[in-house]
Amino acid sequence: MSTYDLAIRGGTLATASDVFRADIGIRDGKIAAIADAVTGAAEEVDATGLLVLPGGIDSHVHIAQPSGDGIVMADDFASATGAAAAGGNTLIMPFALQARGTSLRAAVDAYRAQAEGNCVIDTAIHLIISDPTPEVLGQELPALIKDGYTSFKVFMTYDDLVLSDRELLEVFEVARREGALVMVHAEGYDSIRYMTDRLERAGNTAPYYHAKSRPQLVEREATHRAISHGELVDVPIMIVHVSGREPMEQIRWAQTRGLNVMAETCPQYISLTEEDLRAAQGDDMAGAKYVCSPPPRGTEDHEAIWEGIRTGVFQTFSSDHCPFRYEGTDGKQVPRGRSSFRWVPNGIPGVETRLPILFSEGVSKGRITLQKFVELTATNHARIYGLYPGKGALAVGFDADIALWDPERRETIRQDILHHGADYTPWEGFKVTGWPVMTIARGAVVCKDGTLLAEPGQGKVLARQ
Amino acid sequence: MSTYDLAIRGGTLATASDVFRADIGIRDGKIAAIADAVTGAAEEVDATGLLVLPGGIDSHVHIAQPSGDGIVMADDFASATGAAAAGGNTLIMPFALQARGTSLRAAVDAYRAQAEGNCVIDTAIHLIISDPTPEVLGQELPALIKDGYTSFKVFMTYDDLVLSDRELLEVFEVARREGALVMVHAEGYDSIRYMTDRLERAGNTAPYYHAKSRPQLVEREATHRAISHGELVDVPIMIVHVSGREPMEQIRWAQTRGLNVMAETCPQYISLTEEDLRAAQGDDMAGAKYVCSPPPRGTEDHEAIWEGIRTGVFQTFSSDHCPFRYEGTDGKQVPRGRSSFRWVPNGIPGVETRLPILFSEGVSKGRITLQKFVELTATNHARIYGLYPGKGALAVGFDADIALWDPERRETIRQDILHHGADYTPWEGFKVTGWPVMTIARGAVVCKDGTLLAEPGQGKVLARQ
Amino acid sequence: MSTYDLAIRGGTLATASDVFRADIGIRDGKIAAIADAVTGAAEEVDATGLLVLPGGIDSHVHIAQPSGDGIVMADDFASATGAAAAGGNTLIMPFALQARGTSLRAAVDAYRAQAEGNCVIDTAIHLIISDPTPEVLGQELPALIKDGYTSFKVFMTYDDLVLSDRELLEVFEVARREGALVMVHAEGYDSIRYMTDRLERAGNTAPYYHAKSRPQLVEREATHRAISHGELVDVPIMIVHVSGREPMEQIRWAQTRGLNVMAETCPQYISLTEEDLRAAQGDDMAGAKYVCSPPPRGTEDHEAIWEGIRTGVFQTFSSDHCPFRYEGTDGKQVPRGRSSFRWVPNGIPGVETRLPILFSEGVSKGRITLQKFVELTATNHARIYGLYPGKGALAVGFDADIALWDPERRETIRQDILHHGADYTPWEGFKVTGWPVMTIARGAVVCKDGTLLAEPGQGKVLARQ
Amino acid sequence: MSTYDLAIRGGTLATASDVFRADIGIRDGKIAAIADAVTGAAEEVDATGLLVLPGGIDSHVHIAQPSGDGIVMADDFASATGAAAAGGNTLIMPFALQARGTSLRAAVDAYRAQAEGNCVIDTAIHLIISDPTPEVLGQELPALIKDGYTSFKVFMTYDDLVLSDRELLEVFEVARREGALVMVHAEGYDSIRYMTDRLERAGNTAPYYHAKSRPQLVEREATHRAISHGELVDVPIMIVHVSGREPMEQIRWAQTRGLNVMAETCPQYISLTEEDLRAAQGDDMAGAKYVCSPPPRGTEDHEAIWEGIRTGVFQTFSSDHCPFRYEGTDGKQVPRGRSSFRWVPNGIPGVETRLPILFSEGVSKGRITLQKFVELTATNHARIYGLYPGKGALAVGFDADIALWDPERRETIRQDILHHGADYTPWEGFKVTGWPVMTIARGAVVCKDGTLLAEPGQGKVLARQ
Repeated sequence: MSTYDLAIRGGTLATASDVFRADIGIRDGKIAAIADAVTGAAEEVDATGLLVLPGGIDSHVHIAQPSGDGIVMADDFASATGAAAAGGNTLIMPFALQARGTSLRAAVDAYRAQAEGNCVIDTAIHLIISDPTPEVLGQELPALIKDGYTSFKVFMTYDDLVLSDRELLEVFEVARREGALVMVHAEGYDSIRYMTDRLERAGNTAPYYHAKSRPQLVEREATHRAISHGELVDVPIMIVHVSGREPMEQIRWAQTRGLNVMAETCPQYISLTEEDLRAAQGDDMAGAKYVCSPPPRGTEDHEAIWEGIRTGVFQTFSSDHCPFRYEGTDGKQVPRGRSSFRWVPNGIPGVETRLPILFSEGVSKGRITLQKFVELTATNHARIYGLYPGKGALAVGFDADIALWDPERRETIRQDILHHGADYTPWEGFKVTGWPVMTIARGAVVCKDGTLLAEPGQGKVLARQ
Repeated sequence: MSTYDLAIRGGTLATASDVFRADIGIRDGKIAAIADAVTGAAEEVDATGLLVLPGGIDSHVHIAQPSGDGIVMADDFASATGAAAAGGNTLIMPFALQARGTSLRAAVDAYRAQAEGNCVIDTAIHLIISDPTPEVLGQELPALIKDGYTSFKVFMTYDDLVLSDRELLEVFEVARREGALVMVHAEGYDSIRYMTDRLERAGNTAPYYHAKSRPQLVEREATHRAISHGELVDVPIMIVHVSGREPMEQIRWAQTRGLNVMAETCPQYISLTEEDLRAAQGDDMAGAKYVCSPPPRGTEDHEAIWEGIRTGVFQTFSSDHCPFRYEGTDGKQVPRGRSSFRWVPNGIPGVETRLPILFSEGVSKGRITLQKFVELTATNHARIYGLYPGKGALAVGFDADIALWDPERRETIRQDILHHGADYTPWEGFKVTGWPVMTIARGAVVCKDGTLLAEPGQGKVLARQ
Repeated sequence: MSTYDLAIRGGTLATASDVFRADIGIRDGKIAAIADAVTGAAEEVDATGLLVLPGGIDSHVHIAQPSGDGIVMADDFASATGAAAAGGNTLIMPFALQARGTSLRAAVDAYRAQAEGNCVIDTAIHLIISDPTPEVLGQELPALIKDGYTSFKVFMTYDDLVLSDRELLEVFEVARREGALVMVHAEGYDSIRYMTDRLERAGNTAPYYHAKSRPQLVEREATHRAISHGELVDVPIMIVHVSGREPMEQIRWAQTRGLNVMAETCPQYISLTEEDLRAAQGDDMAGAKYVCSPPPRGTEDHEAIWEGIRTGVFQTFSSDHCPFRYEGTDGKQVPRGRSSFRWVPNGIPGVETRLPILFSEGVSKGRITLQKFVELTATNHARIYGLYPGKGALAVGFDADIALWDPERRETIRQDILHHGADYTPWEGFKVTGWPVMTIARGAVVCKDGTLLAEPGQGKVLARQ
Repeated sequence: MSTYDLAIRGGTLATASDVFRADIGIRDGKIAAIADAVTGAAEEVDATGLLVLPGGIDSHVHIAQPSGDGIVMADDFASATGAAAAGGNTLIMPFALQARGTSLRAAVDAYRAQAEGNCVIDTAIHLIISDPTPEVLGQELPALIKDGYTSFKVFMTYDDLVLSDRELLEVFEVARREGALVMVHAEGYDSIRYMTDRLERAGNTAPYYHAKSRPQLVEREATHRAISHGELVDVPIMIVHVSGREPMEQIRWAQTRGLNVMAETCPQYISLTEEDLRAAQGDDMAGAKYVCSPPPRGTEDHEAIWEGIRTGVFQTFSSDHCPFRYEGTDGKQVPRGRSSFRWVPNGIPGVETRLPILFSEGVSKGRITLQKFVELTATNHARIYGLYPGKGALAVGFDADIALWDPERRETIRQDILHHGADYTPWEGFKVTGWPVMTIARGAVVCKDGTLLAEPGQGKVLARQ
């Protein structure tokens, strides 16, 4: 057997099904051998006492995405991929957003150009379709799917993104015909507008009322609607960022009936609550740091999400990373949202903290096995989004995308140890057990003990099947 | 005890709870006594061997309702109330339709004027809201509710009637504030349009494809959506003309969770099927006679509807009478719908056959008790729509609205024994056991053995609570 | 029309379906007329401001029933029927208990002899079958059914009563063949024994552990088992005294699937809780006053029971009156149960308080309508147990069994205002709104303002259909 | 890296999570390397075009098990392990049966002695407890669990095996205390006896009525009961050989509520039906070849089982191999069962055909992935029954238990190509796509192209965790 570029020795490997002691031999950026002893490598990493896992794949992140009202996201490709690598990830999947009235192809090309040469780890780009014109549905989208952009997200809410039911159905039909996958943000636009008006009329404008303006039943209704549209068109769909029991039960109902409905959940729905959106002492707007959509629910919904994870309702666990700065770059607080929660940018940073939160709350606390962790954070993302084989597993011939974890290490999440572009983390002070101590992407060490070692451009922008 | 204007003697009375042998004494149009022997009446009806039931109330009929494309309904108030009386009814509830861009108040006034002086039996008018402008929601509707128009129907489909989710929510809010009841036609507009286009593109334009263009899941989705809107606003709703298992199960789910959701079903959903919409030998368009929305489903859905009736999911059984002529008045076939099922007028006549069909399929075949029949066809309509006390029961002080039934009489439904304005019945040849042989409204015999004995104008137009 | 023996004038009548103002005329112990004005009666009762309801029927009471260990029940027929009458009832249904190794026929004859001449109001006797020998199943039981003993109870627990599954199935088969109704006490014997041993071994012997020894899942399991046996044999069954959500949901599941499963609940399951079984200050055994089986559950189960009442899962609301003295007749406390909860007699007195509790918690608090109250407490009992027509309704020709209620009267339940034979009430201090102020049985006033006016023997022992 | 004893080269590997191209290097009976190229092995197997899977584990087989009525099973350890190996298995788990009145320890020792030296592949022994005396529960069973017999089966039916509910609870309690796993045969004994009597009385004694004597609801009831007992004791349980929708839905309900209930199904429940039990032309008793318990159900239940497999209700797929000869060893038909289905031995042979049937019906027909196949047939058996790590996966350091499959090979199952001891197969003529062509156990080729190459004694009898 020939020699290797790099050997990872002495660790305990975990795949989505198995856990065992072995060395890994890497050659040309790929896993060449998994064996009881890999010797003769040019370099060796000592993984004694560590877990050796597939690098995390985060299939739901927002980066450098323009927003209609001039707010810029706090992360570009370089900072986001760096933060992701620091958090144990080796691949992220951001969205190329079509603004209304513009070409989808042009949006994708421009977005890809931003990514090229700037990524520390690999990326694969989803599309967001906000304007499904005949041109987009008939030509641009089919062509992009053929080019490897095989998944796209549609929104059932947001002024500048919402699609009508008719548009949803037409987008679903393209997905069916071309074999692509639709990701659905399921919240009911009209219901949210109605509630927002009611709250504003009553003078309830603080960030906390963001949660009240989109109660769980609004998400449940949209989830049922999306499921029905998928059933009518006969196409698989992925319901993203599911927040609580009510939409979860709709998805389970659909799965039980044999419909091909998949689902994703996120750290915020197992660890934050609606109460976090309340003002803090001395800071009326502090709740804005927790404003995301759907909003966090209650602790009983955390239990429902774990139930869904345990019984297989959810296939993926992503971050829905969507970073904004709380204070402006000049150190002054961003004024957006003082007049009403309606103007608070929707989204929280999370690409760097997703894996430690799930590891700690899930594996360390005994709620899920290590194998389930790998499945939820890596393998299923690769399978579902057309990157398998090649990504998402410790398997011979796959890219050597690997994270080393110290399962015993205790850390407290704090903004000052993170690498993302946001100026805060909603998990400030959150204690975890288990931490990623090294990230290897395509066989190269890209992060070690919190220090990024990779150059932008090391990561590739991938086409998919 | 004073004497009576009319005595009904020797019959078996049934209310929504009890069945017993008694005479009825009527004075001044009201039930004055129920006793073992009522003597001394000015007139007597011999009810020996007959059932004496509350007159039917049909809370869902369409009469003399304008349609955007110039089609006129086949019944005016005189013919519809006459047909209803012949079918054992003593009260019907048609809809005053607001056309878009017009005043709701004006529509109601005009409709009421059509009714006044022309009805054989009582009527009470619901509203249809197609244009919920601030004027309508803020002033006209609240004023009309105060005037006794305490229920209104909204549509989730049809080009000229469909309301957006936002509009539905705002109408629901008025209902909550003013204590009125919303009736919901639950089918998803965009889904139907999508399916219609797909079918037409494939050349599937025969009446049969009407059913295929609005499959049950489209009704289920809209039902779930309406339930969610009612939950958000916290207002009771009535889902009308439920056609099969899928929407029924959504309603049961809502009721089990404690939501105040009521439901209605109709004869077509226990006795007709999708197959009836197919062409007949020698008549390509014959299926058009069965075109209604939602369309009839399958026989397994008939079972689901009976299950819903038996376990209390449904409160009312109405006709959704919506009569069109199959051939023109000149004897030539109406051409509407030859080019596509989309142009076939939606609706079937049924006000005269509703009660015999349910009596025969339900009571005579042992599926429901006589008491349940009374509850489904009279008492609950009065209770739910603000006509109770006074209507819907054999009780002292109530209007003497009574139907005498021969439970053993076998009849075959045929167009030539009916009194409605349509030129066909979808139940041509349908055999029943049990038939209404006399109808008494406010103490006056209005129909006897199929012969109408009342003058238009005898029926009143009622305000409600 | 002839004159009447008694007229009840000026009240508001309620049946299981209707509420209306009317007078009632009574002749020969039966309702002869319900009319706007009943004049010319020999006697008149002024019911102005009162409700006039069918007298309560309590289809589940235990009286003068021998118990294996020498404990005697605190009520004989005279005291029990008197207490029932004082509580607004006109008919009770106790159980003739077959002791093992004895003849069922003999047990019935002896029990009937105890009843004859001693009842203030009517009774109808159920059977309890504890020893289904071939003789009992093949001859005694069929003969007794023909004689009008058309319902019998079987137990899935209790040392001296429990039937094996095989015995249950054989009893069910007789019920199917002979058209009788089986009432099932559904708790799992072996599970209770197992839990009892475990608790006793751990030294947990106080009355409170009675509740812990038969948790709700034990009742749920037995309920599912009884339902399955009913399904296998194809026979209707009545699950009695359902205590909470888990068994309730099994019954709903069965009903939804079309099985003929009926259910009963009791006051203790909407107003007492497991916590009541704890020791009181200064009285270690105070919890024994609340020991019944199944035991009261939690307040969330109260909600589940109301949900089941509202959605039609339950047909009847009975007392399961089973009275024991807390202190001996010599004023010393009964020692039974000091060594272990296992020896506390199972049962609480309730025949006199059932109706006020449901009226107050249900009707006065707006949870159920007056009609539903009548249905649950009178009409359905008569229908289900073969006493309809004739009993359970305000209808012409029916027995004049009537209770007059003051719906506004506030009372506090206290042992010193009750007439039963027990020396306490579990509802001591319970406040109610609504109280029965007069009870009329077969046209005779048997109780007025808490004073019994009838002689033992006025009540008949009824055969049934 | 040192060299290998054996290399499997050029195949496609599948684990329960991943599929990839790699070679395997085996040393000392264990997997030493999985690599892109394994060279330098003493021997090589060419797996080009083949799948390389973990050897099957069949955790539910009956071998050489005495039966009360003198019937001997058709397989001893040698023939059963040989047949298993020929069918792609590398480990089977038979049961040591305690006969009533005898010592469990003695039964185990005797059974183990039969196994030692006679097995072609590894075995691990479960216990069957038919007589849970205090001695057995208090001493023998805990000691055996410590010795590695960590799972035992209990029966809810069969004259000589059935445990009472009390006994079940006590066995469950030992399992909880000692950390063992209980496998439950869930069918209701009394219900089956009742039905059997009814059928025999009616003269319905043919093998077909075996199925009628234990309808699905009888299995459902026992499943609910076992689940409830597990919940009461708070112990995980495994419901074995689940046959259809009704018990499957009980298990799903339990899993959804968070109970630790696992489930197994078998080939007969996706490929045979009740109709197979009918007599064949010229052979009244032919149905006896399909008599097993629970019996096969209908094709709609096959769909339910697939639904349960797909949504994760089932963890394992076993054979429940239980072989009897149809004709005696003298060539004459076994007379058992002619007088009544009740005497037909319960059980069918299946250890050799389990894997091809699931591969063909599942993987080849696209119902499940290859990974799911591995999980259901190998990995989960090892995980659940305490053999993981070490067995059930293609992982470094695990035993080299491997099956090579030709996924394209078409075969027709016929008795004359099988190796088991029975004289027929219920799948005679059943066509499959996909066939195991080589079985390697602990690194040694034990079967190649249907030819057994191993000596009895090569397999070990394993203790477990």
